Amino acid sequence: MQGNFSYHNPTKLYFGEDAMSHLVNELRSYGKVVMLSYGGGSVKRNGVYDAVIAALKEAGKTVVEDPGVMPNPTYEKVLEGCKLVRDNSVDLILAVGGGSTIDYAKAVSASAYCVEDPWTKYWVKQGSPDCKTVPIGTVLTMAGTGSEMNGGSVITNRKEGFKRGKVFGSELFPKFTILNPRFTMTVPHYQMVAGFFDIMSHLMEQYFAGKADCTTDYINEGLMRSLVHSSRIAAKNPQDYEARANVMWTATWALNTLLKCGKGGDWEVHQIGHAIGLVTDATHGMTLASVSLPYYRHVMRDGLHQFVRFAVNVWGVRPEGKSDEQVATEGLGCLEAWMKEIGVVMHSSELGVTEQNLQQVADAVLILPVGYRTLTREEVMEILKESM
Amino acid sequence: MQGNFSYHNPTKLYFGEDAMSHLVNELRSYGKVVMLSYGGGSVKRNGVYDAVIAALKEAGKTVVEDPGVMPNPTYEKVLEGCKLVRDNSVDLILAVGGGSTIDYAKAVSASAYCVEDPWTKYWVKQGSPDCKTVPIGTVLTMAGTGSEMNGGSVITNRKEGFKRGKVFGSELFPKFTILNPRFTMTVPHYQMVAGFFDIMSHLMEQYFAGKADCTTDYINEGLMRSLVHSSRIAAKNPQDYEARANVMWTATWALNTLLKCGKGGDWEVHQIGHAIGLVTDATHGMTLASVSLPYYRHVMRDGLHQFVRFAVNVWGVRPEGKSDEQVATEGLGCLEAWMKEIGVVMHSSELGVTEQNLQQVADAVLILPVGYRTLTREEVMEILKESM
Repeated sequence: MQGNFSYHNPTKLYFGEDAMSHLVNELRSYGKVVMLSYGGGSVKRNGVYDAVIAALKEAGKTVVEDPGVMPNPTYEKVLEGCKLVRDNSVDLILAVGGGSTIDYAKAVSASAYCVEDPWTKYWVKQGSPDCKTVPIGTVLTMAGTGSEMNGGSVITNRKEGFKRGKVFGSELFPKFTILNPRFTMTVPHYQMVAGFFDIMSHLMEQYFAGKADCTTDYINEGLMRSLVHSSRIAAKNPQDYEARANVMWTATWALNTLLKCGKGGDWEVHQIGHAIGLVTDATHGMTLASVSLPYYRHVMRDGLHQFVRFAVNVWGVRPEGKSDEQVATEGLGCLEAWMKEIGVVMHSSELGVTEQNLQQVADAVLILPVGYRTLTREEVMEILKESM
Repeated sequence: MQGNFSYHNPTKLYFGEDAMSHLVNELRSYGKVVMLSYGGGSVKRNGVYDAVIAALKEAGKTVVEDPGVMPNPTYEKVLEGCKLVRDNSVDLILAVGGGSTIDYAKAVSASAYCVEDPWTKYWVKQGSPDCKTVPIGTVLTMAGTGSEMNGGSVITNRKEGFKRGKVFGSELFPKFTILNPRFTMTVPHYQMVAGFFDIMSHLMEQYFAGKADCTTDYINEGLMRSLVHSSRIAAKNPQDYEARANVMWTATWALNTLLKCGKGGDWEVHQIGHAIGLVTDATHGMTLASVSLPYYRHVMRDGLHQFVRFAVNVWGVRPEGKSDEQVATEGLGCLEAWMKEIGVVMHSSELGVTEQNLQQVADAVLILPVGYRTLTREEVMEILKESM
């Protein structure tokens, strides 16, 4: 563990098949008006919406309906949500859905009473809220983003041409989160697998940084090994409760600020993925999958010690009689084999990246000066080309 | 992950060499009267006491001195602390020291305004506080117990002849904890090593339970591997900051409720250790070390799958061509070698267990009906004899 850091994560988690039984009691801690934010019709089809409405009724709440949160939530939608919050004096935002819905809820919470322009304040200048915010609770229906126990909020601003992340402090973390692995079982196969890779990407973004010996890396390796194991089972049999439960728990801990303690972080794969998502509106986890191998092969020599460790400790590569570069390469080969096994998208061209929009994607990539290597614009283009 | 559970850990952690710089600001969130609880003279010799007093002054606090918290804090001392809290209308208990001081602070917090008999209510009947409690902050000076981020409070009642643990809920967790690895460097070698084993014991107590495939076990294995690695470095060179920092962080996460999520737990080694501590007043971590090998060898066949996993994933034992029992035995052999390497006490006779007091120790052991095997009284005696 190096440097100075703080850790504070007050989100209450209720996990398991009976997790929803705690919702009524949690709701009682907040005021009368609850804004119910959700996406399309899936929560209505799978019964989650009805269960939530029943709890809201039992707790005597007035419900403000806020449907239609899209997979890559837009800033325009955020502004609509802000108006709903103000017009109805909302006491709690209950986000029911996946990471997009929860990211959206945080954006609304911080923006509703913000006197400055929220996009500029939070997503461009990365400022902190100094206005009143609205508490958030969540009922998670898709494992992946970790948004249920952190301050992350990725928003797409089509007018400005950017998809950007803002990480809010613990005052904007969900106050409580309901985690019932059964709720993730109606997610379409494609989305489920995209979630698996999103989790792995969160783990790798935080793992591939720094040179210090750090307990955090050992925890991260444990989570990676559990994810690889359980995702293999779940990809074959999505109804395996134990595997889905392990994946759901891993997703939450993969990005709840624990794994950045004493570490830096890279996050360049996410920046390239965000750019693809902005241009193609492709599923987030798949955008990450399509660029990860070209990216990591590109920076492998700059962080060779960590890629060797990844190969040995996560994938069980035997290092005896091999050069570090051979071991590291073998590790990335194992990653590739696992990706193919669970069935993620391996090429950005499958997501709609073309010779025509390639430059637009490349221009939208935010280059971060962290990780083992700060990319040049030319390297971003190389990686994107290799990803096609 | 099996069953239903909740997780809520609101303790704020400040980690690193500059962690103390956050103390003044944290103190400002509480009322004027702070009770400063600590042990003997060590915090006065190593400068921690002076730094804390400076922060208290800067924050404008009235300090109620509460020195003399002993290594195995007694119920009698708890009652004295309760009187201090009531007489001075204390707003915050600031516990400066190791786990004993923090365990003591929780006991005082829950007991000061308790109208029933606190010993019976909390440590015998394992009830929850329904009276006013006093917030707690901590400055940790010894890594081991994990008390800085949980609700655990082990108290010795000499009159009743018991040393007992009570695990309070998150409302009694420390509100904030200052973790500066440098503060642990003045701990005597014996206490440092005892702390290392205490951490390992917390990890093993939670690992050796259950049969489900569970992400928690993977996280636990990561923490065990980090601990083994860093404790080896620190035992040779206690001034190695990185190693001491990793050990300190591992200690906190080894027992902050994360590792029991989706798992049961065993905790029988702690019960036997508590009995030895009660009779001999020996250092907690050493009591655990002295009985662990006899205990685990005793229950190994009942949880063979997990002992095999322990051998392979924590100690790197190669399983090819060996029976499960051989692999498991080899794993415990690695544990034994590590214990000897870091220099823990291997025999309870070294701690003062004798033919004369053996029966008294055995009678004081609480037998828990959990873990891979519920011991009989005869087995407790066998294990104790083997430990001598």
